[in-house]
Amino acid sequence: MKKNVKTVKFGGTSLCDAEHFKLAAGIVKSDPDRRLVVPSAPGKRFAGDTKVTDLFYECYRLSRDGNPSEFERCYSEICGRFLSITAGLGLDFDISGELEFIRQAILHRSGRDYAASRGEYLNSLIMAKYLGFDFIDAENVIFFRDDGRLDSDKTDAALREELALHERAVIPGFYGLMPNGTVRTFSRGGSDITGAIVAAASSSSLYENWTDVSGFMMADPRIVPDAHVIREITYRELRELSYMGATVLHEDAIFPVRNAGIPINIRNTLDPSAPGTMIVGSAESFDHDRIITGIAGKRGFSVITIEHHQMHSQIGFGRRVLETIEEHGLSFEHLPSGIDTMGVIVQSAELNEKREKIIEALSRSVRPDSITVEDGIALIAVVGRGMVKYKGTAARVFKSVSDAGVNIRMIDQGSSELNIILGVDEEDFERAVSAIYREFVAS
Amino acid sequence: MKKNVKTVKFGGTSLCDAEHFKLAAGIVKSDPDRRLVVPSAPGKRFAGDTKVTDLFYECYRLSRDGNPSEFERCYSEICGRFLSITAGLGLDFDISGELEFIRQAILHRSGRDYAASRGEYLNSLIMAKYLGFDFIDAENVIFFRDDGRLDSDKTDAALREELALHERAVIPGFYGLMPNGTVRTFSRGGSDITGAIVAAASSSSLYENWTDVSGFMMADPRIVPDAHVIREITYRELRELSYMGATVLHEDAIFPVRNAGIPINIRNTLDPSAPGTMIVGSAESFDHDRIITGIAGKRGFSVITIEHHQMHSQIGFGRRVLETIEEHGLSFEHLPSGIDTMGVIVQSAELNEKREKIIEALSRSVRPDSITVEDGIALIAVVGRGMVKYKGTAARVFKSVSDAGVNIRMIDQGSSELNIILGVDEEDFERAVSAIYREFVAS
Repeated sequence: MKKNVKTVKFGGTSLCDAEHFKLAAGIVKSDPDRRLVVPSAPGKRFAGDTKVTDLFYECYRLSRDGNPSEFERCYSEICGRFLSITAGLGLDFDISGELEFIRQAILHRSGRDYAASRGEYLNSLIMAKYLGFDFIDAENVIFFRDDGRLDSDKTDAALREELALHERAVIPGFYGLMPNGTVRTFSRGGSDITGAIVAAASSSSLYENWTDVSGFMMADPRIVPDAHVIREITYRELRELSYMGATVLHEDAIFPVRNAGIPINIRNTLDPSAPGTMIVGSAESFDHDRIITGIAGKRGFSVITIEHHQMHSQIGFGRRVLETIEEHGLSFEHLPSGIDTMGVIVQSAELNEKREKIIEALSRSVRPDSITVEDGIALIAVVGRGMVKYKGTAARVFKSVSDAGVNIRMIDQGSSELNIILGVDEEDFERAVSAIYREFVAS
Repeated sequence: MKKNVKTVKFGGTSLCDAEHFKLAAGIVKSDPDRRLVVPSAPGKRFAGDTKVTDLFYECYRLSRDGNPSEFERCYSEICGRFLSITAGLGLDFDISGELEFIRQAILHRSGRDYAASRGEYLNSLIMAKYLGFDFIDAENVIFFRDDGRLDSDKTDAALREELALHERAVIPGFYGLMPNGTVRTFSRGGSDITGAIVAAASSSSLYENWTDVSGFMMADPRIVPDAHVIREITYRELRELSYMGATVLHEDAIFPVRNAGIPINIRNTLDPSAPGTMIVGSAESFDHDRIITGIAGKRGFSVITIEHHQMHSQIGFGRRVLETIEEHGLSFEHLPSGIDTMGVIVQSAELNEKREKIIEALSRSVRPDSITVEDGIALIAVVGRGMVKYKGTAARVFKSVSDAGVNIRMIDQGSSELNIILGVDEEDFERAVSAIYREFVAS
C-alpha cells in the first residue's frame, strides 16, 4: 500500500448528474492522497426526482410481477440517466453493453439486491473511466456470510490483496457477494459502510464522506436556524447524540474505521472549502467556547410514577419494578427516583397496548401507594466532552431552561459524564433546546 | 383440505430416467390419497453417472468463471437428460422454452442456488404434466428469512392457502425464495425437508419418502449382510441411532412432521410391495421378538483415563476435569468412572492437535496420580424401546460380546433407558456388532 491514502465516499446527490460528477472528480483530483473512491448511485437532481436506486427497485418489481411494457419504460428511464451522465462528461465510453446485460439479468432471476446495486456499479464504472482510476468490482472484494452478515475476515483479506495491486481505484458502494454467487446489498445508505471498510483495509489516514451538508449541526436547524456545524466530535459523543435522534452515519459505517483509528470527515461537495465535521476517537484539545458539542432530542415518551412510603427501606423494590417492566417486553430509558417515588421513562409507542397490564402487574409486584402514567414527554440530550472539566454545566442547563419558562420534569446526568438528559413537556421541546443552545453557544 | 392426504416424496434415483418416472407415477396413481408429490432432481442412472444437480452446479461454475464453450457443452448434457425423459414418457410437452430461460438465467447472475434448484423444478413440471396434477412452484410457497433460515410461519401460511386451491399437486423439493427474490436451496438432500413441510401444512395422514432402499436396516448391512429392515421406529430411537452414525433423514426433515404428529414411511420405489420403515411418535405395541430396534456405531474415539487416589473424597474433581476439557473446546461423549479412576471419551479427530495441552492442563487442574490417553476406540449404540420392559438386556449384550472374544472397554446405559453404549477396540467393532445382532435377532 502507498503511504498516504484517503478514502473518499460520495453520496447520491453528489453524483446525481454530469455537473455533480465533475465537482466530485475535481475534489478527488485536488488532493493526490485521494486514491480510493467509493461512489453511491445517482440521487435526486431536483425535488420530486426519483433516485436511480428506486428506479432499479421498481424495475425489479415490474419484472417479478410480469409487467414487460412498464418494465421497459422504467428501464429506459434508467438508461437515460446514465447515458446523459456519460454524454455530459464527454466520455468516450459505451455503457450500452452493460445496460443490456443488466436488463437481461433483472429479467432472469438475479434478484432485488442485484437490481438495486446496479446504480453504484454503473456510477463507479463511469467515475473510474472519468478519473482514469482502476475499477474494482465490490463483488470481488466485499463478501457476506450465508446468514447475510458481512464476512469481515474474508472481505478484509480480499480487499487488502486487491488494493495492493492498484495505485488508484474506484470501488462501488452498497453491495457485495453472497456465498451462492448472488449479489446482496447492505441496508439503505450502505455505501457509507463500504467506504468505511475500504478505508480500514487500505489503512487510510482519513475517511472522507462527501454529502450535501456541511457536517453535523450542533442542534436541529429546524429549531435553531443558525446552528453551528460541529467541527470535531468524538465517536462516543456521536453515539449519544444519534441515540437521541440526531441523523448520523449508520452504526455499521462507524465501526470499521473507529476500530482502525481512522477519523471520518463529513464534507459538502457543493462547498468543498468548508472543513465539515471531523469524527475522531478522542479529542486532544477542545475549543473553550464549546463546553457542549451538540444537543439532540426526541418526543414520544411516557413516565410511570410509582409512589411508596419508605420505598428505600424495601430491599429489591427497584429490581422488582424493572423485572415487571422487562417481563412485559419494555425497555426503560431512564429511572429518575426521589424519596419514596420512582419514575420509569419508557417510549409511549412501546407502552401503549400494554399499559393496563403493566400497571396491574406493578400493583401486584410492589404494592405501591399509587401509580400514575403521564404521556407527552420529550427527552433532550446535551452532549459534550467539555462538561467533564467544567463543573456546574448541569446547573447552567437547568437555569437556562427554567429562565425560558420551561418546567423540567426530569434531569439525569449520564454516568459517562458526557451528557445530561432532560425531560420536558413536548410542547416545551423547541423552547428548551433553543434556550440551551443560546446559553452555551450564542452567549 | 381434503380428508385423506398423503404427501409422497421421491428421491433422485427414483426419478433418474423415464422408466423410473413411470414406476413413481404408478405408485402415486395406485393410491388416490397420494395427492401431493414432492420430486427430487434426476439422480444417477448407473454407477459413474452424474446427478443432474451436479451438472447444474458445474454449469454455474463454468458461467461464473467465464468459460462459455464448456458451459454450453455441460448445459446441453442437462437438456439431453430432460428431453429424454419427456420423450420416454411420450409426453406432448415442450420444455425447450423453460430450458432456454434457465440457460439465460444461469448466464445472468441468478446464482448458484438458482442453478442447483432447476433439477427439482423441471422434474416437477414434467411429473405434474405426466400425472395430470397441478404444479405449485416452491418459490411461491417456501420462504427463507434474510438470515437464510426457513421462515416457518410465512411458509406454512402460504402453503395452506395455496394447497387449499388444488385437489392434487406436484411441488418441487429442495428450494424456496429469499426476501430479495433470489432462489435459495436447503442443504443437500433438502427435498426431504420440503416433503416434511408440505406434509405438515397439508395435515397429511402420512409422509411417504420413496428411495432406493427398503427402509432402515437394524444394523449396517456391510457388517450384518442379512440384517432385517426395521419395521417401526420411534423418533427418539431414530435420533439415538443417527447420532451414532446410522444414515437417516436430515434432522430438519423430521421436525415438521414429528411436530404435527405425522408418521414417516420410508419406502423402496423398486419394491413397492415392501412395507418399509415406519417412523412414529410413539409405538403402542412392539414385537416381542424385537427387544432391540437397531444397532449403530462409529470408530475414531479416544479415552483419557485419569487416576487419583481417593478421587471421590475430592469435592469437584469431576467438574474440574470437565471444565478443563471444555476450556479446550472439546465435547465429551461419555464419562465412565470407577473407584479412583475416571475416563473421558472424546472424538480422536477433535483431540488430536490439543492432546499435549489438555494433558498438561489436566495435570495442573486436578493433580492426578496418572493420565493416559488411548486411541482406537469404537462406540456401539444398542437402541430399543423394548429394553425398558426387558430388564437384563445389558447383561445379554455384555455376555454376547464377551462370548465373541471381544474385550469391553466401557459400558454405559443411557439415562433414557432407550440405549446401551459399548466401547470396544476398533478391531473388534464388526465382531461386536455382529454378536449383538445374533443375540437379539437371529437367535
